[in-house]
Amino acid sequence: MSRYDTCWLPSEPLPGRHTFFLDPAATGPVVEGIRRELKTSLAAVEAGEANASLILRLARNLSPEGFAIHWESKACIIDAGGETGLLYGLYAVIRRLSLDGAPPSGSCYEAPACDIRMLDHWDMLSGEIERGYAGKSIFYDQGTFLNDFRRIEDYARILASIGINAVSLNNVNVKPEHISLMLPDGLRAARAYCDIFRRYGIRSFLSVNFASPMIAGGLASADPLREDVRAWWREAAARVCDALPGFGGFLIKADSEGEPGPHTYGRTHAEGANMLADALAPHGGLVIWRCFVYNYMQDWRDRTTDRAKAAWETFAPLDGQFRNNAVLQVKFGPLDFQIREPVSPLIGALRRTNLVVELQITQEYTGQQRHICYLAPQWKEVLNFDTYAQDRESTVARLIAGKQRHGLAAVASTGRDYNWTGHKLAQANLYAFGRLAWNPSLTAADILTEWIAQTFALPPALDARLFDMMLHSRDVYEAYTVPLGVCFMCRPESHYGPSVDGYEYDRWGTYHFADRDGVGNDRTALTGTGFTAQYHEPNRSAYENIGTCPDALLLFFHHVPYTHRLHSGKTVIQHIYDSHFDGVESVERYVRHWEAFSGSMPDADFENVRARLQEQLRCAKEWRDQINTYFYRKSGIGDERGRTIYP
Amino acid sequence: MSRYDTCWLPSEPLPGRHTFFLDPAATGPVVEGIRRELKTSLAAVEAGEANASLILRLARNLSPEGFAIHWESKACIIDAGGETGLLYGLYAVIRRLSLDGAPPSGSCYEAPACDIRMLDHWDMLSGEIERGYAGKSIFYDQGTFLNDFRRIEDYARILASIGINAVSLNNVNVKPEHISLMLPDGLRAARAYCDIFRRYGIRSFLSVNFASPMIAGGLASADPLREDVRAWWREAAARVCDALPGFGGFLIKADSEGEPGPHTYGRTHAEGANMLADALAPHGGLVIWRCFVYNYMQDWRDRTTDRAKAAWETFAPLDGQFRNNAVLQVKFGPLDFQIREPVSPLIGALRRTNLVVELQITQEYTGQQRHICYLAPQWKEVLNFDTYAQDRESTVARLIAGKQRHGLAAVASTGRDYNWTGHKLAQANLYAFGRLAWNPSLTAADILTEWIAQTFALPPALDARLFDMMLHSRDVYEAYTVPLGVCFMCRPESHYGPSVDGYEYDRWGTYHFADRDGVGNDRTALTGTGFTAQYHEPNRSAYENIGTCPDALLLFFHHVPYTHRLHSGKTVIQHIYDSHFDGVESVERYVRHWEAFSGSMPDADFENVRARLQEQLRCAKEWRDQINTYFYRKSGIGDERGRTIYP
Repeated sequence: MSRYDTCWLPSEPLPGRHTFFLDPAATGPVVEGIRRELKTSLAAVEAGEANASLILRLARNLSPEGFAIHWESKACIIDAGGETGLLYGLYAVIRRLSLDGAPPSGSCYEAPACDIRMLDHWDMLSGEIERGYAGKSIFYDQGTFLNDFRRIEDYARILASIGINAVSLNNVNVKPEHISLMLPDGLRAARAYCDIFRRYGIRSFLSVNFASPMIAGGLASADPLREDVRAWWREAAARVCDALPGFGGFLIKADSEGEPGPHTYGRTHAEGANMLADALAPHGGLVIWRCFVYNYMQDWRDRTTDRAKAAWETFAPLDGQFRNNAVLQVKFGPLDFQIREPVSPLIGALRRTNLVVELQITQEYTGQQRHICYLAPQWKEVLNFDTYAQDRESTVARLIAGKQRHGLAAVASTGRDYNWTGHKLAQANLYAFGRLAWNPSLTAADILTEWIAQTFALPPALDARLFDMMLHSRDVYEAYTVPLGVCFMCRPESHYGPSVDGYEYDRWGTYHFADRDGVGNDRTALTGTGFTAQYHEPNRSAYENIGTCPDALLLFFHHVPYTHRLHSGKTVIQHIYDSHFDGVESVERYVRHWEAFSGSMPDADFENVRARLQEQLRCAKEWRDQINTYFYRKSGIGDERGRTIYP
Repeated sequence: MSRYDTCWLPSEPLPGRHTFFLDPAATGPVVEGIRRELKTSLAAVEAGEANASLILRLARNLSPEGFAIHWESKACIIDAGGETGLLYGLYAVIRRLSLDGAPPSGSCYEAPACDIRMLDHWDMLSGEIERGYAGKSIFYDQGTFLNDFRRIEDYARILASIGINAVSLNNVNVKPEHISLMLPDGLRAARAYCDIFRRYGIRSFLSVNFASPMIAGGLASADPLREDVRAWWREAAARVCDALPGFGGFLIKADSEGEPGPHTYGRTHAEGANMLADALAPHGGLVIWRCFVYNYMQDWRDRTTDRAKAAWETFAPLDGQFRNNAVLQVKFGPLDFQIREPVSPLIGALRRTNLVVELQITQEYTGQQRHICYLAPQWKEVLNFDTYAQDRESTVARLIAGKQRHGLAAVASTGRDYNWTGHKLAQANLYAFGRLAWNPSLTAADILTEWIAQTFALPPALDARLFDMMLHSRDVYEAYTVPLGVCFMCRPESHYGPSVDGYEYDRWGTYHFADRDGVGNDRTALTGTGFTAQYHEPNRSAYENIGTCPDALLLFFHHVPYTHRLHSGKTVIQHIYDSHFDGVESVERYVRHWEAFSGSMPDADFENVRARLQEQLRCAKEWRDQINTYFYRKSGIGDERGRTIYP
């Protein structure tokens, strides 16, 4: 039994006793992970009485992470191109056995769609996690390493079981004290974590501060074209890569939120990224460069600037100028992990650049693991979005799949809580991220079905009820929060709960422009900020034109009167009222329905969700009432159905 | 020369050399303070050549703090009822000499109007000061005592020079770790501070937590009627009073902002206060009980509750039930130190209770010592307000003057900054508080004149300019911030800068209720919350009636259309626009005018104010633009004069 929740993995060996044969040619750290997993989940033994046997063979003609499984009577054969593929094959077998109970027959072949399947941890040496909602860091505490290796190993196992193959170990907002991670003592400590992750096929990355040569090296500048700066990074990269076998590379956020970057020195982000790429290249490392640039401070008085345009303006012109081992990491939307945003036009603008699309598992703007919000439906919308970057179908999934140094990254949701994610049901988002990065063609419903079946042992009626609650929970969250893609309206700093004007007069470019007549952000090329022009046709025209713009994104792209009629047939103001009343009613149903789960799962899980549902309901009502009152006070238009709106 | 700014006191001895005679009957700690002051400010010597002589005599027929000064040619005689009176007389002489240059002739007699003239320090053991804007605490650092005794002595001298006779040493929001101040080690350390203050006639108080018997004593309850609780407090009071000679007593805030109090146990605040009073009585100590009670959480949806009513509702019915050594400390306004509030009706409701009126020197809501805001005009309005508590004239000043255990208290503005108050010109507020507590009949202009003349040595034109800038600075601050007494509209938590809706949907009872038609809080008895009924006539009717309610308080008491015409002849909306444009123009004038002061004062002071004026201007523009845009978007009514209002 683990000291922590084992999530979707078996908490004790599956029934039956298995003999196993592990190809003697399989060597290296991952073999340790495989042996532990065989024992933990399958009670496998190397010899003796057994009900079934399991054969793990290297087949070098397969890709290193791919595997084939052949189910035979009383035997299962896993062939894989490398040790990590064997491990992934083993998890596929465990999943199959967990889901079906008995071994199936037949064969299957799988390989990951994305080369990079990464979790970004925003953990800090202090032990706090930026935007973390599941307790403190599993890596650090009070300024130093926590060194709880057993927990790290349990965690690595959970990640490997869904195919995650990369993690960053520290917050991309790199505080100066984090420089210690790049120095000898810090590297010795970090190595212990890296070695554990390597046993599960996971490469470790470090987030670095662009100003490191000044902070740690005492240089007067961090200009990427200066030779002393470049030499400092070469030496630093060599030191880190020597100290951390199998090191992945650097993750970096520059020129953002007050931190320095290439722009500080009048250089492009290609020049900045390439400096790091050159330093890492001799060691096989990558630089992952986050396209979240906005020392693009806005003034709410100035309607011509638009933060949504920032990433494209900075990076689209640089397409093709990045080194082969540099990767741009682009947030899925042009703003910041909102419950509803269009897909970032930058994704379709990078044709000759390595691309990782960034999602957010931690629910910063989506309920902070106090609200049920299963995010796979949103992520599927992103992956299925056709960017029209090329003539043939150019969905986001196609742009990132099947290419080296492309993939998906996500901000992690995990912390020191017993169940890792704070809210038991939020484990589903971690699971879904891994599964989608492995295979973007899985549906949100398929993944949810898998997750529920592995995580719980519910009677069919409850299984179906939980499936219904979760599958539509993103729509429910959207219904009682921010209407029609207008974004933000949350409380500043905490990003939790409503504050309609909280960001309205701030410098972050997050405005809704509600007045007594209407609401929304005119981002059209004709009369607005021109953001729509960053899209390829036909997306450009679809968004530009109020008649074709999807309802869900109407207020992201257009400023309209409250009486504007949506495609749904409702006016904007009535849509606001209806969705907010409906959203709260859905949560009230969640609360009622959850009582039926008592006794069908461990008490701790039941009570964990029950307590959070109370908070979700309280918060949903607060959203409903504040949003409704705000727009009632502005518009003077009452609810057609006469429900309670406080004056 | 001091290591710190000496404020209005001479930084070196005044010209001339004085022999002094100090009545040998004068004994006790204050004599030390007198001797130091004679040396520091007057270069007085006990014998030898001298230009003038100074005779300090005890005259027991005078009150202990009162003094008479007789100026004769080449001699000055101070007669006082006690050592503290001698010290105050000495400061009066120094003030006279500083202001006039040469000794005047004639006689004068002075005694303080208020018995209690107290500064409340919101300093915490961590070294932080709640709502402190002048650096860290002069008392504490990093969880323990700072023990910078010389600074404390310099501070005590500054306070004594304006007649302050009581200080509380720790924040009235008493964190659990502050219990250490009541335990032997903490008391030993606190004694050093108390002893210094005693040399300057200042009694020290400690803020205590109502739950102390539970936190420190391990009791199961803090119920004020339980004998074990009462015994715990008796023992604690004895321990503290034994350890701190001349100890003043306890200051306490209970049942507020989530902290426990008598209501937790179903007891009245009289029962709570009397328990502490009984414990302190044998030792001559006071309990000062803050009437800031609002575990009176509001819901913005509920228009019937009104935080403004809370203090009166809790305390007015208890009038006459408090012990003789218990004092109620009432905030001057019913809300929370806003730039414009009516005077609290509770002040006029306490006829048989010891009363201290609480002001706020630290500029929490009035510019946080980054804006010039000379507060004496506001305090004078409070002191001159006729409560009509009795048939004859019942101004606040009359209610608190000339009575034992009555007086004025204020939240301190001082910290570890070189100039003590962060903003050099904010020293004037500390000065004015002391002077008004001594003599409430002084005018704001008199005090300002005194302060400028003692603090600077400006040519007459600059003297007059600074006087003009400061005298009206409260009106200027009000003009660009919160209109017509509506209160708040500041950023939550920091309380700095605009956020019109920042508190609109919160639980603090701080609402403006602006909608597309109008704005303001209906607190009338006829149609609103009924708060006006807490006033005696004729105030009650004056506020109740929209035709007689003063413009400056209109939106505190009434909800009116934007087109409502003020007594000034302007509509509400046009008043909002005009005052905000005017307010910023005034600050622009401050910025321009300040340049003329270069070279006329120490560079550090000049630059200190100059930098803060830049911030004041930036912030004033932000207030102007956000307020104007907010009300333009709501009302749809443009500025009559066509000035820029961002849409």
